[in-house]
Amino acid sequence: MAGNMIGRAFTVSTFGESHGVALGATVDGCPAGLELAREDIQDELDRRRPGTSDLVSQRAEKDRVEILSGVFDDMTTGTPIHMAVYNTDVDSSSYASLVDRPRPGHADLTYRMKFGHRDYRGGGRASGRETVSRVMGGAVAKKLLSATHDITIIGHAIEIGGVVASEDPDFDSLVGSRDNPVRCADPEAAERMEEAIRSASEEGDSVGGIVGIVARNVPLGVGEPVFGKLDAELAKSLVSIGSVKGVEFGAGFRSARMAGSKSNDAIAEIDGKPRLITNNAGGVLGGISTGNDLVVRIAVKPTPSISVAQRTLDMVTKQDVEIKISGRHDPCIVPRIVPVAESMVAITLADLMIRGGFIDPSRI
Amino acid sequence: MAGNMIGRAFTVSTFGESHGVALGATVDGCPAGLELAREDIQDELDRRRPGTSDLVSQRAEKDRVEILSGVFDDMTTGTPIHMAVYNTDVDSSSYASLVDRPRPGHADLTYRMKFGHRDYRGGGRASGRETVSRVMGGAVAKKLLSATHDITIIGHAIEIGGVVASEDPDFDSLVGSRDNPVRCADPEAAERMEEAIRSASEEGDSVGGIVGIVARNVPLGVGEPVFGKLDAELAKSLVSIGSVKGVEFGAGFRSARMAGSKSNDAIAEIDGKPRLITNNAGGVLGGISTGNDLVVRIAVKPTPSISVAQRTLDMVTKQDVEIKISGRHDPCIVPRIVPVAESMVAITLADLMIRGGFIDPSRI
Amino acid sequence: MAGNMIGRAFTVSTFGESHGVALGATVDGCPAGLELAREDIQDELDRRRPGTSDLVSQRAEKDRVEILSGVFDDMTTGTPIHMAVYNTDVDSSSYASLVDRPRPGHADLTYRMKFGHRDYRGGGRASGRETVSRVMGGAVAKKLLSATHDITIIGHAIEIGGVVASEDPDFDSLVGSRDNPVRCADPEAAERMEEAIRSASEEGDSVGGIVGIVARNVPLGVGEPVFGKLDAELAKSLVSIGSVKGVEFGAGFRSARMAGSKSNDAIAEIDGKPRLITNNAGGVLGGISTGNDLVVRIAVKPTPSISVAQRTLDMVTKQDVEIKISGRHDPCIVPRIVPVAESMVAITLADLMIRGGFIDPSRI
Amino acid sequence: MAGNMIGRAFTVSTFGESHGVALGATVDGCPAGLELAREDIQDELDRRRPGTSDLVSQRAEKDRVEILSGVFDDMTTGTPIHMAVYNTDVDSSSYASLVDRPRPGHADLTYRMKFGHRDYRGGGRASGRETVSRVMGGAVAKKLLSATHDITIIGHAIEIGGVVASEDPDFDSLVGSRDNPVRCADPEAAERMEEAIRSASEEGDSVGGIVGIVARNVPLGVGEPVFGKLDAELAKSLVSIGSVKGVEFGAGFRSARMAGSKSNDAIAEIDGKPRLITNNAGGVLGGISTGNDLVVRIAVKPTPSISVAQRTLDMVTKQDVEIKISGRHDPCIVPRIVPVAESMVAITLADLMIRGGFIDPSRI
Repeated sequence: MAGNMIGRAFTVSTFGESHGVALGATVDGCPAGLELAREDIQDELDRRRPGTSDLVSQRAEKDRVEILSGVFDDMTTGTPIHMAVYNTDVDSSSYASLVDRPRPGHADLTYRMKFGHRDYRGGGRASGRETVSRVMGGAVAKKLLSATHDITIIGHAIEIGGVVASEDPDFDSLVGSRDNPVRCADPEAAERMEEAIRSASEEGDSVGGIVGIVARNVPLGVGEPVFGKLDAELAKSLVSIGSVKGVEFGAGFRSARMAGSKSNDAIAEIDGKPRLITNNAGGVLGGISTGNDLVVRIAVKPTPSISVAQRTLDMVTKQDVEIKISGRHDPCIVPRIVPVAESMVAITLADLMIRGGFIDPSRI
Repeated sequence: MAGNMIGRAFTVSTFGESHGVALGATVDGCPAGLELAREDIQDELDRRRPGTSDLVSQRAEKDRVEILSGVFDDMTTGTPIHMAVYNTDVDSSSYASLVDRPRPGHADLTYRMKFGHRDYRGGGRASGRETVSRVMGGAVAKKLLSATHDITIIGHAIEIGGVVASEDPDFDSLVGSRDNPVRCADPEAAERMEEAIRSASEEGDSVGGIVGIVARNVPLGVGEPVFGKLDAELAKSLVSIGSVKGVEFGAGFRSARMAGSKSNDAIAEIDGKPRLITNNAGGVLGGISTGNDLVVRIAVKPTPSISVAQRTLDMVTKQDVEIKISGRHDPCIVPRIVPVAESMVAITLADLMIRGGFIDPSRI
Repeated sequence: MAGNMIGRAFTVSTFGESHGVALGATVDGCPAGLELAREDIQDELDRRRPGTSDLVSQRAEKDRVEILSGVFDDMTTGTPIHMAVYNTDVDSSSYASLVDRPRPGHADLTYRMKFGHRDYRGGGRASGRETVSRVMGGAVAKKLLSATHDITIIGHAIEIGGVVASEDPDFDSLVGSRDNPVRCADPEAAERMEEAIRSASEEGDSVGGIVGIVARNVPLGVGEPVFGKLDAELAKSLVSIGSVKGVEFGAGFRSARMAGSKSNDAIAEIDGKPRLITNNAGGVLGGISTGNDLVVRIAVKPTPSISVAQRTLDMVTKQDVEIKISGRHDPCIVPRIVPVAESMVAITLADLMIRGGFIDPSRI
Repeated sequence: MAGNMIGRAFTVSTFGESHGVALGATVDGCPAGLELAREDIQDELDRRRPGTSDLVSQRAEKDRVEILSGVFDDMTTGTPIHMAVYNTDVDSSSYASLVDRPRPGHADLTYRMKFGHRDYRGGGRASGRETVSRVMGGAVAKKLLSATHDITIIGHAIEIGGVVASEDPDFDSLVGSRDNPVRCADPEAAERMEEAIRSASEEGDSVGGIVGIVARNVPLGVGEPVFGKLDAELAKSLVSIGSVKGVEFGAGFRSARMAGSKSNDAIAEIDGKPRLITNNAGGVLGGISTGNDLVVRIAVKPTPSISVAQRTLDMVTKQDVEIKISGRHDPCIVPRIVPVAESMVAITLADLMIRGGFIDPSRI
């Protein structure tokens, strides 16, 4: 039942399969009067595109986006913004042999059993390629948040293949993470992360990691208790990304070992506004933003597509079989998830900020 | 904007403040024909009730629930099931002095700034007492899941105050966790957890922990890609519980350090059904349940109400002040969150199982 | 599946059966800072209460409402406002004999077939008594609309039992309609309507009619194309009232016979604002309010409960049978639907005005 | 705020402007396993296409639809079905002169005031051309209803320009209405309707009318009380069509003048099932389908685009001005609304039948 739409006031509805005709997104609820050009979307898509370094998939998708509605004279009109990319570099040949042999770690088994008939090519709807639609929606949301509240959202790799970046980078370092292929704010760790990925790749294996996302300039008051809390909505939108196995806010799982006297963030006036002095809360208290930086982390599992032999079940013969997955896969998905995670945070913030009256729903 | 309802097919709408007249929940979308008695709700409420041991708050709420609609001759009718408890043991005196001094770690600051006018008594709507409504809704959901699919949901304390239970308890031990006051499946660790709580309590401080939730007999196929995924919806419903700072599924954050060849769960036929042999996935692949146990963990921060001195801001005088919180507070909220977490899992499963056609929406 | 909630930003969730314990409503999404007293709700409930004249049912419900949450010191707090009335004057004896013999014109047959198990007493959930919950929600919405935009909503009987009121009453006459038992703005017609009702009543029969609703001071811009249009949402909320068989806006069905040159409303500046000079549109163009009066009419069928003999099917014996319905029924439901219709218009306007940014969702 | 999506279980999300790049729809929630070809959609689109007779607009849109996702090997996969048509025959020249002079009867004024910046060309989003997206969604819904329940939905012109068709046509005549350009089941009236349209056209004027829609084989039990009633949801979806000013069910507004003893439909067993012998209810009681034919009528106002002189306001100069609208417009929109109205009924039925468990949401 209808699960391909997210948001209530600012909604993103997506469609498309990995090897289908096209993928796209419809953003509904973006107010009129926002400057928006094709390049705004394209720039974000380029950040998640495969083929950008030797660390990621060599599928050579151009992913040229087109805006088909909702924008007139490079400005939004308050009507649905529809964006699409057409698939071009499609090679479905390697999937036919796997059609009855579900790949471990993938959604092959569950989609087959749930839907019966499915587009198995390239993982179909369950492919990571689905995230191009998320980035399209995120690009619009980012533009809206930036234009109305000067909000910046930065994702970065905190850990890859066991290599951990130094803690608490300053904001300039975070922005700098966009310059290296692993998207890590710590240049020294970034190099070791690259090595870890290459090492796994050479063995036909893969690695996972942790992505951090920071949103700056989110005003105090965003979030709708008790179920539409800011952190609850973010948890949903981030865990909905394929391969994400966990999410935490501020001190997160570490707070489980803190004393209350350590975990509580003292309150004081900063720049004329009440703020938390420390940020164990990660920018949200009682489900409502505090005005501090929003700080979130997600756990990303290693790419399930590996060329190492794996055991699975042939669904027709009911025999145990061994498969090796060939094709052009990312040995580590973490760098490419960075812009996707940013997008989901942006979409959720845009939605809750319109719901909370921070952004006029009709025109800015 | 309207955030106090969760679910789409099976919805729970809640109301009530800590020291208000009453708290309650309306369950809409429960099919007709389910046997449901007042005691079914009461039993679950009793599990989260304060005053049950010296480890939790001594507020002596009876929390006697009444069913006001939707049930006729002890059987549901398909119409909204409304449940309420009246507040009785209310002592609001200690809150008046704190009205302009937001308690660190609480939602006082954010509610005040967002809503302006608020019921500050006992934390008002942002109190942990709000969770009685969740447990009411969860009780109905549990009954529905049990009656239609023999699903059992067990929450248990995995870690409290730094004390970690032994890993991977069997299902009987999980059920046994209900017998000790900290709700831990490892009796030896349970004793040390009690000590940790008492020790923090004596210092006027508090501790946090980790709660695990396991759902057994969830059929393969539950969850609606790509935003209504089972894990995404669970993440939202669990993080919406106050004090929860993180959530993970299966291997969770540990999967970030695994190789793909280790993280992927091999597939085989078990009892005539395709299943994962291991369960790093935690029972969900591509956002759809695998038929394996659903395995989730949440991080719970230490109770913010402590009698240790804390720094905060007087909102009227704009002065830095020091406050100590008196009153009847839990030095550790973990044991009482256990039934709440179970409830949120049950509500989310009931919702997605109706959405997915596993449960008839009109009558069972 | 969950159909007992209406609205998206300002939501009303209702529960309760005619002869159950209680009926009520939860309003979620009302901003903080609105003055709201128990009497505000009670006054509206009293307008739909039975027993107010010899023209309506003599059931002597006091319908004393209680506000259980969301209001503190007579002012809303932005949290859910829960209201309930307890049933007192319940006499279910006359319904037992009809339990297997569905009353024509009622929902007995459809509820029985859909839900299997149902509370048949007094019509259960399908009783007109369900509308007390709508009036509770409407009372809050009216208060909000009045406080923020000075909006007044007046319902009135246009036609009853074939007696038609004079057309186009001025606004003062509309308000005056509240003074006569049939709620008609034309005093002369009102008397003949009373006669028509009494005449039908003496024959054990019933009559229907047409209710008009006018909303004044609705600003230009309310409504969300292309599915959340103001008139579309109003059509849903008004047709959801039991016994309503049609709805029309402005010239409505008459516009089907007009020429375009007659139907189109010319545009001019009035009081410094662009407005329609005539109002065939009924205050809505392209699904968006024009700033003119909102003008809606609904068709109300005659009360199905009559003591005249009727043919129906005994569901157990499968025999054709004849039934006569005794008990305390309204020979005409039109006057009591007036406040219900006003309520549904108010709820829909409040919802769309928050969605459209006309009312701040957090605090006014 | 996000109003361009309809439905909850079977949703249709639409986008596109009259003279923009493309228009389209995304259907989410259609189960897997439904045979669906491009031609199924194209056939329905061809029925609403302009240029099919001299009675409708001569805009020569080919409206060639493409399915971009959700269908594999001509069968649905349970993932979103995305459909689009590209605009080709666009001539925006005539609109530039009207940009600051809102056309009476159109949404020019309200869109301008609400959104500020808009695509005025051809009416932009508010154009009747928007309905191509509705027909796309409706085509999928019809296929689903037909395949699972053999449901047929027929729309037909009941009245055009004051010419009224003979009452109560049999079902074969209804189907036959598709053969004449005005879509009327009464061939003799059809000819006079054509004359009425031509006569208005020659005067540069336009006419309206009434469309009836009948749905056959809807099972008993569809609809979700008390707000998600079948008639309430239909009212919303039908009134959301541009130019529709009213909707009624069964006896509709006529029931306002009936006695209860006449309005109530007696119940009897027909073909082994309990059914209403007459159908004043129009196939719905208590918001739930009765199993009888679903009978709905909508009032359609005359096309607002006329070449007769009309008074309006120049929004820049604030002067009263006179305008005449040139271009290729329909002198009567009724025949082209017929397939649109069928589509909205189909979408609403598909949605409620999935919500009610009549159609499996995952696979058929």
